Amino acid sequence: MPDLPPPSDPDFASRVRASFERQGFMKTLGAELTAVEPGACEIRLPFRKGLGQQHGYFHAGALGAIADSAGGYAAYTLMGANDSVLSVEYKMNLLAPGRGDTAVARARVVKAGRTLTVSQVEVFVERDGSETLCALMQQTLMRLADRPDTAV
Amino acid sequence: MPDLPPPSDPDFASRVRASFERQGFMKTLGAELTAVEPGACEIRLPFRKGLGQQHGYFHAGALGAIADSAGGYAAYTLMGANDSVLSVEYKMNLLAPGRGDTAVARARVVKAGRTLTVSQVEVFVERDGSETLCALMQQTLMRLADRPDTAV
Amino acid sequence: MPDLPPPSDPDFASRVRASFERQGFMKTLGAELTAVEPGACEIRLPFRKGLGQQHGYFHAGALGAIADSAGGYAAYTLMGANDSVLSVEYKMNLLAPGRGDTAVARARVVKAGRTLTVSQVEVFVERDGSETLCALMQQTLMRLADRPDTAV
Amino acid sequence: MPDLPPPSDPDFASRVRASFERQGFMKTLGAELTAVEPGACEIRLPFRKGLGQQHGYFHAGALGAIADSAGGYAAYTLMGANDSVLSVEYKMNLLAPGRGDTAVARARVVKAGRTLTVSQVEVFVERDGSETLCALMQQTLMRLADRPDTAV
Repeated sequence: MPDLPPPSDPDFASRVRASFERQGFMKTLGAELTAVEPGACEIRLPFRKGLGQQHGYFHAGALGAIADSAGGYAAYTLMGANDSVLSVEYKMNLLAPGRGDTAVARARVVKAGRTLTVSQVEVFVERDGSETLCALMQQTLMRLADRPDTAV
Repeated sequence: MPDLPPPSDPDFASRVRASFERQGFMKTLGAELTAVEPGACEIRLPFRKGLGQQHGYFHAGALGAIADSAGGYAAYTLMGANDSVLSVEYKMNLLAPGRGDTAVARARVVKAGRTLTVSQVEVFVERDGSETLCALMQQTLMRLADRPDTAV
Repeated sequence: MPDLPPPSDPDFASRVRASFERQGFMKTLGAELTAVEPGACEIRLPFRKGLGQQHGYFHAGALGAIADSAGGYAAYTLMGANDSVLSVEYKMNLLAPGRGDTAVARARVVKAGRTLTVSQVEVFVERDGSETLCALMQQTLMRLADRPDTAV
Repeated sequence: MPDLPPPSDPDFASRVRASFERQGFMKTLGAELTAVEPGACEIRLPFRKGLGQQHGYFHAGALGAIADSAGGYAAYTLMGANDSVLSVEYKMNLLAPGRGDTAVARARVVKAGRTLTVSQVEVFVERDGSETLCALMQQTLMRLADRPDTAV
């Protein structure tokens, strides 16, 4: 487990929730922000056909989208009240078909630097009450200092 | 430019188009399949707020989703009539904010192996008539032999 | 923790050690195979100037090389006696300067499929008796069935 | 082709060559810096058994090491006289066995930002006079401002 600094902004959770609310794409997906902790974040996404690929399972792009947001917001919990966060890059392995009722992206910060943060995200898909690890993401985020999220 | 084998299936383009039509997620996004060539594919996505991140630009996950489909279908053009294609993994760098009217993902196959194919995808965003390269993806695809796309 | 199958080959450890001995590059580096467990592997590499980058720390390429071998051999523990293993791709984040006496790559298998395996590798660098996480790799490996490692 | 800014430092090539000379690991490999252009770099590496994996071809880690240096120095050509360059992360696909006499890593900058640069690197292996594309890297580099390469 990495040794992370505590959040510098005591209101990190409400700041993250407000930013998530502004992500129109998360609404289009139907994604829900279900946990925000220092250096960690969870997003859930119920399945519907409109999120599927050609075989009717979760499209890798839909899993990638919630993983990207979860990793970004995990990083954002540790940034300052006046900072913004941007995805620099991410890499995702698909480990099993995304077949089930709900996808759950669980992100945690591995390294929080002054400018760059690295997050790791596991995406599970629930089916008949059990979870399968379907995707694994490694992601780099950038802090934009003194550019509040609402002003960019 | 890589030296690719010609498509073994003369009907590759209609096979790709039919598979794209079955991807519910592409409909939810509003994405359009605008070109299918041997080892290449283009997908376009008009912007709307429902595809945005917190600053109102294209969400990285939306760009990643059309890039993933474009790269997968570029690979799929070179597979057999009875094959399916799966994303193994992808890695995407975000090079510029996805600010504009339309995103265009252009994919080409770099290496087509018996089991694995590697694609490269550039994602441009058009704004006021000019294109900016906003994302770059490197992706690995897998051929599932003798499992037609409609039967998986 | 992933639920991995047990090794099908009871002699997996000696098979891995024999393959490692054939990697001339590990000898050139001065790397040592220090642990082989089902789905896991550890490689250690003492620092010398000949492994440095321009600032005198471990070159990212040297850390990447032991991480690649560690992840590949973690995967190889779960393959059959007549199989070979190949790296398909890897992605590595550099988290801290590789400054210290010894680098230690610790790999574990995240998913072992019939054809493809995914490993995760942490690379620590020891300095004055404490370890710093300096690099993190996510890697895809391929099983070549019925092509013994010694015969490829 | 990306639209890159011209080098701000007219002595970029000698600055890159001097930095390469300080990379002890490139000497250990036997790698040679064979071209330095604005936003581009080439490194060559003759094969010997001490660079091999278990089957006697180039070890993926050796190809990754010259690709990492080539991509980093391509980025460094566009940085300032008092800047240093660091690898943030890289991702490499292995496209064909690295079987041959000489590996050639050719890097070019895809995007040069104020803080981050993205490079793409192709690694060819020459054999009997013809080149095969064996590996493809996508890489992120960071500029350390006002920290000259010799002083870090």
